Amino acid sequence: MSITARYGDPTSTLGVANDILTLQLARRSVRRFGPRDVTDDELTALVAAAQSAPTSSNLQPWSVVAVRDPDRKKRLSALAGGQAFVAEAPLFLVWIADLGRARRLAARAGTDVHAADYLETTVIGFVDTALAAQNAVIAAESLGLGSVFVGGIRNQPEQVAAELGLPPHAVAAFGLAVGEPDPAEQADVKPRLPQAAVLHHETYDAEAADRHIAAYDERLSAYNSRFGLPGGWTERVLTRLRGPESMAGRHLLRDTLERLGLPSR
Amino acid sequence: MSITARYGDPTSTLGVANDILTLQLARRSVRRFGPRDVTDDELTALVAAAQSAPTSSNLQPWSVVAVRDPDRKKRLSALAGGQAFVAEAPLFLVWIADLGRARRLAARAGTDVHAADYLETTVIGFVDTALAAQNAVIAAESLGLGSVFVGGIRNQPEQVAAELGLPPHAVAAFGLAVGEPDPAEQADVKPRLPQAAVLHHETYDAEAADRHIAAYDERLSAYNSRFGLPGGWTERVLTRLRGPESMAGRHLLRDTLERLGLPSR
Repeated sequence: MSITARYGDPTSTLGVANDILTLQLARRSVRRFGPRDVTDDELTALVAAAQSAPTSSNLQPWSVVAVRDPDRKKRLSALAGGQAFVAEAPLFLVWIADLGRARRLAARAGTDVHAADYLETTVIGFVDTALAAQNAVIAAESLGLGSVFVGGIRNQPEQVAAELGLPPHAVAAFGLAVGEPDPAEQADVKPRLPQAAVLHHETYDAEAADRHIAAYDERLSAYNSRFGLPGGWTERVLTRLRGPESMAGRHLLRDTLERLGLPSR
Repeated sequence: MSITARYGDPTSTLGVANDILTLQLARRSVRRFGPRDVTDDELTALVAAAQSAPTSSNLQPWSVVAVRDPDRKKRLSALAGGQAFVAEAPLFLVWIADLGRARRLAARAGTDVHAADYLETTVIGFVDTALAAQNAVIAAESLGLGSVFVGGIRNQPEQVAAELGLPPHAVAAFGLAVGEPDPAEQADVKPRLPQAAVLHHETYDAEAADRHIAAYDERLSAYNSRFGLPGGWTERVLTRLRGPESMAGRHLLRDTLERLGLPSR
Protein backbone atom coordinates (compact mmCIF):
# COMPACT_ATOMS: atom_id res chain seq x y z
CA MET A 1 0.00 0.00 0.00
CA SER A 2 1.38 3.35 -0.99
CA ILE A 3 0.69 5.00 2.39
CA THR A 4 2.89 2.50 4.21
CA ALA A 5 5.78 3.13 1.77
CA ARG A 6 5.27 6.90 2.06
CA TYR A 7 5.83 6.76 5.81
CA GLY A 8 8.06 3.67 5.89
CA ASP A 9 5.61 2.45 8.49
CA PRO A 10 3.57 -0.76 7.98
CA THR A 11 0.93 0.49 10.44
CA SER A 12 0.02 3.62 8.40
CA THR A 13 -3.49 3.66 6.99
CA LEU A 14 -5.60 6.04 4.93
CA GLY A 15 -9.39 6.21 5.37
CA VAL A 16 -10.09 7.58 1.89
CA ALA A 17 -8.81 6.44 -1.49
CA ASN A 18 -8.91 7.34 -5.16
CA ASP A 19 -6.64 7.14 -8.21
CA ILE A 20 -5.27 10.64 -7.78
CA LEU A 21 -4.23 10.12 -4.15
CA THR A 22 -2.66 6.81 -5.16
CA LEU A 23 -0.63 8.54 -7.87
CA GLN A 24 0.43 11.37 -5.54
CA LEU A 25 1.48 9.04 -2.74
CA ALA A 26 3.50 6.81 -5.07
CA ARG A 27 5.55 9.67 -6.58
CA ARG A 28 9.30 9.35 -6.33
CA SER A 29 12.10 11.34 -7.89
CA VAL A 30 13.30 9.81 -11.17
CA ARG A 31 16.95 10.35 -12.07
CA ARG A 32 17.39 7.72 -14.79
CA PHE A 33 15.40 7.99 -17.98
CA GLY A 34 14.43 5.68 -20.81
CA PRO A 35 15.02 6.53 -24.46
CA ARG A 36 11.60 7.86 -25.45
CA ASP A 37 11.10 11.57 -26.01
CA VAL A 38 8.60 13.79 -24.25
CA THR A 39 6.22 14.78 -27.03
CA ASP A 40 5.09 18.32 -27.82
CA ASP A 41 1.54 17.33 -26.82
CA GLU A 42 2.82 16.16 -23.45
CA LEU A 43 4.78 19.38 -22.94
CA THR A 44 1.65 21.38 -23.76
CA ALA A 45 -0.26 19.37 -21.14
CA LEU A 46 2.43 19.91 -18.48
CA VAL A 47 2.37 23.67 -19.02
CA ALA A 48 -1.44 23.83 -19.14
CA ALA A 49 -1.55 21.95 -15.83
CA ALA A 50 1.07 24.34 -14.42
CA GLN A 51 -0.96 27.35 -15.52
CA SER A 52 -4.02 25.83 -13.80
CA ALA A 53 -2.38 26.16 -10.38
CA PRO A 54 -3.42 29.08 -8.21
CA THR A 55 -1.44 32.31 -8.52
CA SER A 56 -1.51 35.32 -6.20
CA SER A 57 -3.88 38.00 -7.57
CA ASN A 58 -3.62 36.26 -10.98
CA LEU A 59 -0.14 37.83 -11.35
CA GLN A 60 1.22 34.70 -13.10
CA PRO A 61 4.78 35.75 -12.21
CA TRP A 62 6.57 32.84 -13.86
CA SER A 63 7.78 31.49 -17.17
CA VAL A 64 9.28 28.19 -18.18
CA VAL A 65 12.03 27.42 -20.67
CA ALA A 66 11.86 23.97 -22.27
CA VAL A 67 15.36 22.75 -23.10
CA ARG A 68 15.87 19.77 -25.40
CA ASP A 69 19.08 20.74 -27.18
CA PRO A 70 21.73 18.24 -26.00
CA ASP A 71 24.54 20.80 -25.84
CA ARG A 72 22.48 23.27 -23.83
CA LYS A 73 21.39 20.52 -21.44
CA LYS A 74 25.06 19.61 -20.97
CA ARG A 75 25.99 23.20 -20.20
CA LEU A 76 23.08 23.52 -17.75
CA SER A 77 24.07 20.23 -16.15
CA ALA A 78 27.57 21.60 -15.56
CA LEU A 79 26.19 24.86 -14.15
CA ALA A 80 23.86 22.95 -11.82
CA GLY A 81 26.55 20.96 -10.04
CA GLY A 82 27.33 18.38 -12.69
CA GLN A 83 24.31 16.17 -12.16
CA ALA A 84 24.30 13.82 -15.16
CA PHE A 85 20.52 13.35 -15.28
CA VAL A 86 20.07 16.99 -16.34
CA ALA A 87 21.84 16.17 -19.60
CA GLU A 88 20.34 12.69 -19.88
CA ALA A 89 16.66 13.64 -19.48
CA PRO A 90 14.95 14.17 -22.85
CA LEU A 91 13.35 17.35 -21.50
CA PHE A 92 14.77 19.81 -19.00
CA LEU A 93 12.34 22.49 -17.85
CA VAL A 94 13.80 25.59 -16.24
CA TRP A 95 11.16 27.31 -14.15
CA ILE A 96 11.63 31.06 -13.99
CA ALA A 97 10.44 33.33 -11.19
CA ASP A 98 9.59 36.12 -13.59
CA LEU A 99 8.87 39.69 -12.56
CA GLY A 100 10.20 40.82 -15.92
CA ARG A 101 6.83 40.49 -17.63
CA ALA A 102 5.14 42.84 -15.15
CA ARG A 103 8.07 45.28 -15.38
CA ARG A 104 7.72 45.30 -19.16
CA LEU A 105 3.96 45.95 -18.86
CA ALA A 106 4.79 48.90 -16.63
CA ALA A 107 7.45 50.23 -19.00
CA ARG A 108 5.04 50.07 -21.93
CA ALA A 109 2.37 51.85 -19.87
CA GLY A 110 4.86 54.52 -18.79
CA THR A 111 4.35 53.68 -15.13
CA ASP A 112 6.18 51.85 -12.35
CA VAL A 113 5.70 48.73 -10.24
CA HIS A 114 7.59 49.58 -7.07
CA ALA A 115 6.09 46.59 -5.24
CA ALA A 116 8.29 44.39 -7.41
CA ASP A 117 11.31 45.71 -5.47
CA TYR A 118 10.32 43.95 -2.24
CA LEU A 119 11.14 40.53 -0.83
CA GLU A 120 7.39 39.85 -0.58
CA THR A 121 7.11 40.01 -4.36
CA THR A 122 10.19 37.82 -4.86
CA VAL A 123 8.55 35.33 -2.49
CA ILE A 124 5.34 35.45 -4.55
CA GLY A 125 7.44 34.78 -7.63
CA PHE A 126 9.09 31.69 -6.14
CA VAL A 127 5.90 30.41 -4.47
CA ASP A 128 3.73 30.76 -7.57
CA THR A 129 6.44 29.15 -9.70
CA ALA A 130 6.51 26.24 -7.27
CA LEU A 131 2.71 25.82 -7.24
CA ALA A 132 2.76 25.70 -11.03
CA ALA A 133 5.70 23.31 -11.26
CA GLN A 134 4.18 20.87 -8.78
CA ASN A 135 1.08 20.70 -10.96
CA ALA A 136 3.40 19.86 -13.87
CA VAL A 137 5.01 17.10 -11.77
CA ILE A 138 1.61 15.51 -11.13
CA ALA A 139 0.59 15.94 -14.78
CA ALA A 140 3.83 14.22 -15.82
CA GLU A 141 3.12 11.30 -13.48
CA SER A 142 -0.36 11.00 -14.99
CA LEU A 143 1.26 10.59 -18.42
CA GLY A 144 3.67 7.91 -17.22
CA LEU A 145 6.59 10.35 -17.06
CA GLY A 146 8.95 10.76 -14.13
CA SER A 147 10.76 13.87 -12.96
CA VAL A 148 13.17 15.32 -10.47
CA PHE A 149 13.63 18.90 -9.30
CA VAL A 150 17.07 20.46 -9.65
CA GLY A 151 17.78 23.13 -7.04
CA GLY A 152 21.36 23.21 -8.30
CA ILE A 153 20.16 25.57 -11.02
CA ARG A 154 20.48 28.23 -8.28
CA ASN A 155 24.20 27.48 -7.80
CA GLN A 156 25.13 29.95 -10.55
CA PRO A 157 21.99 31.95 -11.39
CA GLU A 158 23.72 34.60 -13.50
CA GLN A 159 25.38 32.04 -15.76
CA VAL A 160 22.06 30.21 -16.12
CA ALA A 161 20.33 33.51 -16.97
CA ALA A 162 22.95 34.16 -19.65
CA GLU A 163 22.62 30.62 -21.07
CA LEU A 164 18.84 30.99 -21.35
CA GLY A 165 18.85 34.63 -22.45
CA LEU A 166 16.71 35.67 -19.52
CA PRO A 167 15.59 39.30 -19.46
CA PRO A 168 16.13 41.46 -16.37
CA HIS A 169 13.97 40.76 -13.30
CA ALA A 170 13.84 37.02 -13.97
CA VAL A 171 15.71 34.19 -12.23
CA ALA A 172 15.79 30.43 -12.65
CA ALA A 173 13.99 29.16 -9.53
CA PHE A 174 14.68 25.45 -10.13
CA GLY A 175 14.96 22.93 -12.93
CA LEU A 176 12.82 19.89 -13.57
CA ALA A 177 14.25 16.94 -15.50
CA VAL A 178 11.43 15.01 -17.19
CA GLY A 179 11.35 11.71 -19.04
CA GLU A 180 10.22 8.14 -19.09
CA PRO A 181 11.42 6.37 -15.93
CA ASP A 182 14.12 3.78 -16.56
CA PRO A 183 12.81 0.69 -14.75
CA ALA A 184 16.40 -0.31 -13.99
CA GLU A 185 16.86 2.68 -11.66
CA GLN A 186 17.56 1.67 -8.08
CA ALA A 187 15.13 3.92 -6.23
CA ASP A 188 11.93 3.82 -4.27
CA VAL A 189 9.41 6.03 -2.53
CA LYS A 190 11.37 7.85 0.17
CA PRO A 191 9.68 7.71 3.57
CA ARG A 192 8.71 11.06 5.06
CA LEU A 193 8.43 12.29 8.62
CA PRO A 194 5.48 10.81 10.53
CA GLN A 195 2.45 12.97 9.92
CA ALA A 196 2.32 13.80 13.63
CA ALA A 197 5.70 15.51 13.25
CA VAL A 198 4.43 18.07 10.73
CA LEU A 199 0.66 18.40 11.31
CA HIS A 200 -0.50 20.51 14.24
CA HIS A 201 -4.05 21.14 15.43
CA GLU A 202 -5.06 24.70 16.32
CA THR A 203 -1.61 25.64 17.61
CA TYR A 204 1.95 24.48 17.03
CA ASP A 205 3.28 22.01 19.59
CA ALA A 206 7.02 21.58 18.98
CA GLU A 207 7.60 19.13 21.80
CA ALA A 208 4.80 16.76 20.75
CA ALA A 209 5.84 16.96 17.09
CA ASP A 210 9.55 16.41 17.64
CA ARG A 211 8.87 13.30 19.73
CA HIS A 212 8.32 11.47 16.42
CA ILE A 213 11.71 12.25 14.91
CA ALA A 214 13.67 9.44 16.57
CA ALA A 215 11.44 6.77 15.01
CA TYR A 216 11.83 8.50 11.64
CA ASP A 217 15.61 8.55 11.95
CA GLU A 218 15.50 4.78 12.32
CA ARG A 219 13.15 4.33 9.34
CA LEU A 220 15.26 6.54 7.11
CA SER A 221 18.47 4.81 8.20
CA ALA A 222 16.91 1.51 7.20
CA TYR A 223 15.77 2.99 3.86
CA ASN A 224 19.17 4.56 3.15
CA SER A 225 21.06 1.37 3.99
CA ARG A 226 19.03 -0.46 1.32
CA PHE A 227 20.77 1.84 -1.19
CA GLY A 228 24.16 1.65 0.49
CA LEU A 229 23.87 5.13 1.98
CA PRO A 230 24.82 5.90 5.57
CA GLY A 231 22.98 7.98 8.13
CA GLY A 232 19.52 8.86 9.36
CA TRP A 233 17.55 12.04 8.78
CA THR A 234 18.88 14.24 11.58
CA GLU A 235 22.48 13.63 10.56
CA ARG A 236 21.76 14.45 6.89
CA VAL A 237 19.83 17.63 7.69
CA LEU A 238 22.63 18.88 9.94
CA THR A 239 25.24 18.16 7.27
CA ARG A 240 23.20 19.81 4.53
CA LEU A 241 22.61 22.98 6.57
CA ARG A 242 26.02 23.16 8.25
CA GLY A 243 26.97 26.48 6.72
CA PRO A 244 27.87 28.44 3.58
CA GLU A 245 30.35 25.73 2.61
CA SER A 246 27.48 23.24 2.32
CA MET A 247 25.48 25.50 -0.04
CA ALA A 248 27.30 25.13 -3.39
CA GLY A 249 27.49 28.90 -3.83
CA ARG A 250 23.86 29.56 -3.02
CA HIS A 251 24.66 31.54 0.11
CA LEU A 252 25.21 34.39 -2.36
CA LEU A 253 21.62 34.28 -3.65
CA ARG A 254 20.55 37.55 -2.06
CA ASP A 255 23.19 39.64 -3.83
CA THR A 256 22.71 37.69 -7.04
CA LEU A 257 18.97 38.37 -7.05
CA GLU A 258 19.67 42.05 -6.66
CA ARG A 259 22.03 42.01 -9.66
CA LEU A 260 19.41 40.13 -11.70
CA GLY A 261 16.84 42.83 -10.95
CA LEU A 262 14.97 41.26 -8.03
CA PRO A 263 16.20 43.55 -5.25
CA SER A 264 14.13 41.76 -2.58
CA ARG A 265 14.33 44.58 -0.09
CA MET B 1 -13.77 21.38 -22.74
CA SER B 2 -11.61 22.34 -19.83
CA ILE B 3 -8.66 23.49 -21.94
CA THR B 4 -10.78 26.12 -23.72
CA ALA B 5 -12.03 27.50 -20.39
CA ARG B 6 -8.50 27.49 -18.98
CA TYR B 7 -7.30 29.78 -21.75
CA GLY B 8 -10.63 31.52 -22.45
CA ASP B 9 -9.93 30.54 -26.04
CA PRO B 10 -12.30 28.28 -27.97
CA THR B 11 -9.48 27.25 -30.33
CA SER B 12 -7.29 25.71 -27.57
CA THR B 13 -6.77 21.97 -27.83
CA LEU B 14 -4.89 19.31 -25.90
CA GLY B 15 -3.47 16.24 -27.64
CA VAL B 16 -3.42 14.05 -24.52
CA ALA B 17 -6.13 13.43 -21.94
CA ASN B 18 -6.74 11.65 -18.66
CA ASP B 19 -8.77 12.14 -15.49
CA ILE B 20 -5.96 13.82 -13.59
CA LEU B 21 -5.31 16.45 -16.28
CA THR B 22 -9.06 17.06 -16.47
CA LEU B 23 -9.20 17.65 -12.72
CA GLN B 24 -6.15 19.93 -12.77
CA LEU B 25 -7.39 22.02 -15.68
CA ALA B 26 -10.84 22.47 -14.14
CA ARG B 27 -9.55 23.76 -10.77
CA ARG B 28 -10.83 27.13 -9.67
CA SER B 29 -10.54 28.98 -6.39
CA VAL B 30 -13.51 28.29 -4.10
CA ARG B 31 -14.47 31.09 -1.69
CA ARG B 32 -17.96 29.94 -0.65
CA PHE B 33 -18.38 26.68 1.18
CA GLY B 34 -21.22 24.28 1.90
CA PRO B 35 -22.08 23.10 5.41
CA ARG B 36 -20.29 19.76 5.49
CA ASP B 37 -17.12 19.32 7.52
CA VAL B 38 -13.76 18.17 6.22
CA THR B 39 -13.28 14.82 7.96
CA ASP B 40 -10.18 13.73 9.84
CA ASP B 41 -9.60 11.06 7.19
CA GLU B 42 -9.68 13.71 4.48
CA LEU B 43 -7.26 15.91 6.41
CA THR B 44 -4.91 12.95 6.80
CA ALA B 45 -5.08 12.40 3.03
CA LEU B 46 -4.36 16.07 2.27
CA VAL B 47 -1.27 16.06 4.49
CA ALA B 48 -0.07 12.68 3.16
CA ALA B 49 -0.36 14.06 -0.38
CA ALA B 50 1.49 17.19 0.71
CA GLN B 51 4.29 15.13 2.23
CA SER B 52 4.55 13.17 -1.04
CA ALA B 53 5.68 16.29 -2.92
CA PRO B 54 9.39 16.66 -3.61
CA THR B 55 11.50 18.48 -1.02
CA SER B 56 15.04 19.78 -1.40
CA SER B 57 17.53 17.25 0.02
CA ASN B 58 14.62 15.70 1.96
CA LEU B 59 14.82 18.66 4.36
CA GLN B 60 11.01 18.77 4.75
CA PRO B 61 11.22 22.37 5.96
CA TRP B 62 7.52 22.92 6.54
CA SER B 63 4.68 22.26 8.94
CA VAL B 64 0.95 22.82 8.72
CA VAL B 65 -1.50 23.96 11.37
CA ALA B 66 -5.09 22.77 10.90
CA VAL B 67 -7.51 25.32 12.32
CA ARG B 68 -11.17 24.43 12.87
CA ASP B 69 -11.96 26.44 16.00
CA PRO B 70 -14.46 29.13 14.92
CA ASP B 71 -12.99 31.84 17.12
CA ARG B 72 -9.44 31.20 15.95
CA LYS B 73 -10.60 31.22 12.32
CA LYS B 74 -12.29 34.57 12.93
CA ARG B 75 -9.12 36.03 14.43
CA LEU B 76 -7.03 34.71 11.54
CA SER B 77 -9.56 36.08 9.08
CA ALA B 78 -9.18 39.52 10.66
CA LEU B 79 -5.36 39.26 10.59
CA ALA B 80 -5.44 38.22 6.92
CA GLY B 81 -7.26 41.26 5.63
CA GLY B 82 -10.79 40.46 6.76
CA GLN B 83 -11.60 37.91 4.08
CA ALA B 84 -14.84 36.27 5.29
CA PHE B 85 -14.17 32.88 3.67
CA VAL B 86 -11.27 32.26 6.08
CA ALA B 87 -13.78 32.15 8.93
CA GLU B 88 -16.48 30.44 6.88
CA ALA B 89 -14.41 27.51 5.59
CA PRO B 90 -14.77 24.42 7.80
CA LEU B 91 -10.99 23.92 7.66
CA PHE B 92 -8.29 26.56 7.44
CA LEU B 93 -4.79 25.22 6.89
CA VAL B 94 -1.90 27.50 7.71
CA TRP B 95 1.21 26.36 5.88
CA ILE B 96 4.41 27.13 7.77
CA ALA B 97 7.83 27.62 6.20
CA ASP B 98 9.57 25.94 9.11
CA LEU B 99 13.28 26.08 9.75
CA GLY B 100 12.56 25.70 13.44
CA ARG B 101 12.60 21.91 13.29
CA ALA B 102 16.13 21.84 11.84
CA ARG B 103 17.29 24.46 14.35
CA ARG B 104 15.94 22.32 17.18
CA LEU B 105 17.72 19.25 15.78
CA ALA B 106 20.93 21.28 15.80
CA ALA B 107 20.38 22.55 19.33
CA ARG B 108 19.79 19.01 20.61
CA ALA B 109 22.94 17.82 18.80
CA GLY B 110 24.94 20.72 20.24
CA THR B 111 25.80 21.98 16.76
CA ASP B 112 24.75 24.78 14.43
CA VAL B 113 23.00 25.14 11.07
CA HIS B 114 24.44 28.39 9.75
CA ALA B 115 23.00 27.74 6.28
CA ALA B 116 19.57 28.45 7.77
CA ASP B 117 20.61 32.11 8.07
CA TYR B 118 20.62 32.69 4.31
CA LEU B 119 17.95 33.82 1.87
CA GLU B 120 18.57 30.63 -0.12
CA THR B 121 17.31 28.56 2.79
CA THR B 122 14.29 30.82 3.33
CA VAL B 123 13.53 30.36 -0.37
CA ILE B 124 13.79 26.58 0.04
CA GLY B 125 11.37 26.86 2.95
CA PHE B 126 8.79 28.77 0.93
CA VAL B 127 9.26 26.70 -2.25
CA ASP B 128 9.00 23.33 -0.49
CA THR B 129 5.95 24.53 1.45
CA ALA B 130 4.35 25.54 -1.85
CA LEU B 131 5.12 22.22 -3.56
CA ALA B 132 3.52 20.42 -0.62
CA ALA B 133 0.47 22.69 -0.46
CA GLN B 134 -0.23 22.36 -4.18
CA ASN B 135 -0.33 18.60 -3.77
CA ALA B 136 -2.89 19.13 -0.99
CA VAL B 137 -4.94 21.35 -3.34
CA ILE B 138 -5.08 18.56 -5.94
CA ALA B 139 -5.82 15.95 -3.28
CA ALA B 140 -8.68 18.13 -2.02
CA GLU B 141 -10.12 18.41 -5.54
CA SER B 142 -9.93 14.62 -5.88
CA LEU B 143 -12.10 14.35 -2.74
CA GLY B 144 -14.69 16.82 -4.04
CA LEU B 145 -13.37 19.63 -1.85
CA GLY B 146 -12.56 23.14 -3.02
CA SER B 147 -9.93 25.53 -1.72
CA VAL B 148 -8.39 28.96 -2.02
CA PHE B 149 -4.96 30.21 -1.03
CA VAL B 150 -4.75 33.15 1.36
CA GLY B 151 -1.61 35.24 0.88
CA GLY B 152 -3.10 37.76 3.31
CA ILE B 153 -1.75 35.57 6.10
CA ARG B 154 1.55 37.39 5.38
CA ASN B 155 -0.02 40.80 6.11
CA GLN B 156 0.80 40.47 9.82
CA PRO B 157 3.12 37.48 10.23
CA GLU B 158 4.10 38.17 13.84
CA GLN B 159 0.50 38.31 15.02
CA VAL B 160 -0.25 35.12 13.11
CA ALA B 161 2.79 33.46 14.69
CA ALA B 162 1.54 34.49 18.13
CA GLU B 163 -2.01 33.24 17.39
CA LEU B 164 -0.68 29.84 16.31
CA GLY B 165 2.06 29.60 18.94
CA LEU B 166 4.75 29.23 16.30
CA PRO B 167 8.25 28.57 17.59
CA PRO B 168 11.20 30.70 16.43
CA HIS B 169 12.44 30.24 12.84
CA ALA B 170 8.94 29.53 11.50
CA VAL B 171 6.61 31.78 9.50
CA ALA B 172 3.14 31.35 8.03
CA ALA B 173 3.78 31.20 4.28
CA PHE B 174 0.13 31.22 3.22
CA GLY B 175 -3.25 29.92 4.30
CA LEU B 176 -5.52 27.50 2.47
CA ALA B 177 -9.27 27.58 3.12
CA VAL B 178 -10.78 24.16 2.41
CA GLY B 179 -14.35 22.93 2.22
CA GLU B 180 -17.16 21.63 0.09
CA PRO B 181 -17.83 24.07 -2.77
CA ASP B 182 -21.12 25.93 -2.47
CA PRO B 183 -22.71 25.41 -5.89
CA ALA B 184 -24.35 28.83 -5.57
CA GLU B 185 -20.97 30.61 -5.76
CA GLN B 186 -20.63 32.88 -8.76
CA ALA B 187 -17.25 31.82 -10.07
CA ASP B 188 -15.61 29.99 -12.91
CA VAL B 189 -12.26 28.79 -14.18
CA LYS B 190 -10.20 31.96 -14.64
CA PRO B 191 -8.49 32.12 -18.03
CA ARG B 192 -4.70 32.25 -17.95
CA LEU B 193 -2.15 33.83 -20.26
CA PRO B 194 -1.82 32.07 -23.60
CA GLN B 195 0.71 29.30 -23.30
CA ALA B 196 2.92 31.05 -25.86
CA ALA B 197 3.27 33.95 -23.39
CA VAL B 198 4.88 31.81 -20.68
CA LEU B 199 6.52 28.84 -22.46
CA HIS B 200 9.85 29.42 -24.19
CA HIS B 201 11.91 26.95 -26.21
CA GLU B 202 15.66 26.76 -25.58
CA THR B 203 15.97 30.48 -24.77
CA TYR B 204 13.67 33.21 -23.48
CA ASP B 205 12.14 35.42 -26.15
CA ALA B 206 10.42 38.34 -24.41
CA GLU B 207 9.22 40.02 -27.58
CA ALA B 208 7.57 36.90 -29.00
CA ALA B 209 6.01 36.03 -25.63
CA ASP B 210 4.64 39.49 -24.87
CA ARG B 211 2.95 39.67 -28.29
CA HIS B 212 0.23 37.44 -26.80
CA ILE B 213 -0.69 39.74 -23.92
CA ALA B 214 -3.07 42.02 -25.81
CA ALA B 215 -5.35 39.12 -26.75
CA TYR B 216 -5.29 37.96 -23.12
CA ASP B 217 -6.23 41.42 -21.86
CA GLU B 218 -9.34 41.20 -24.02
CA ARG B 219 -10.20 37.68 -22.84
CA LEU B 220 -9.77 38.59 -19.19
CA SER B 221 -11.80 41.80 -19.61
CA ALA B 222 -14.61 39.69 -21.04
CA TYR B 223 -14.29 37.22 -18.16
CA ASN B 224 -14.20 39.95 -15.52
CA SER B 225 -17.20 41.76 -16.98
CA ARG B 226 -19.24 38.54 -16.57
CA PHE B 227 -18.74 39.02 -12.82
CA GLY B 228 -19.27 42.78 -12.86
CA LEU B 229 -15.55 43.51 -12.47
CA PRO B 230 -13.75 46.13 -14.53
CA GLY B 231 -10.39 45.94 -16.27
CA GLY B 232 -8.12 43.60 -18.16
CA TRP B 233 -5.01 41.83 -16.95
CA THR B 234 -2.38 44.54 -17.54
CA GLU B 235 -4.37 47.13 -15.62
CA ARG B 236 -4.89 44.80 -12.65
CA VAL B 237 -1.24 43.74 -12.49
CA LEU B 238 -0.09 47.36 -12.55
CA THR B 239 -2.54 48.30 -9.79
CA ARG B 240 -1.57 45.32 -7.65
CA LEU B 241 2.17 46.04 -7.94
CA ARG B 242 1.99 49.84 -7.83
CA GLY B 243 4.01 50.18 -4.64
CA PRO B 244 4.20 49.58 -0.88
CA GLU B 245 0.72 51.09 -0.46
CA SER B 246 -0.71 48.24 -2.57
CA MET B 247 0.92 45.52 -0.42
CA ALA B 248 -1.24 45.46 2.74
CA GLY B 249 1.82 45.68 4.98
CA ARG B 250 3.77 42.97 3.24
CA HIS B 251 6.50 45.35 2.07
CA LEU B 252 7.86 44.85 5.60
CA LEU B 253 8.31 41.09 5.15
CA ARG B 254 12.09 41.18 5.07
CA ASP B 255 12.44 42.79 8.50
CA THR B 256 9.63 40.66 9.89
CA LEU B 257 11.31 37.45 8.76
CA GLU B 258 14.48 38.54 10.52
CA ARG B 259 12.57 39.13 13.76
CA LEU B 260 10.89 35.72 13.42
CA GLY B 261 14.31 34.05 13.13
CA LEU B 262 14.63 33.73 9.35
CA PRO B 263 17.35 36.31 8.76
CA SER B 264 17.45 35.67 5.00
CA ARG B 265 20.84 37.26 4.49
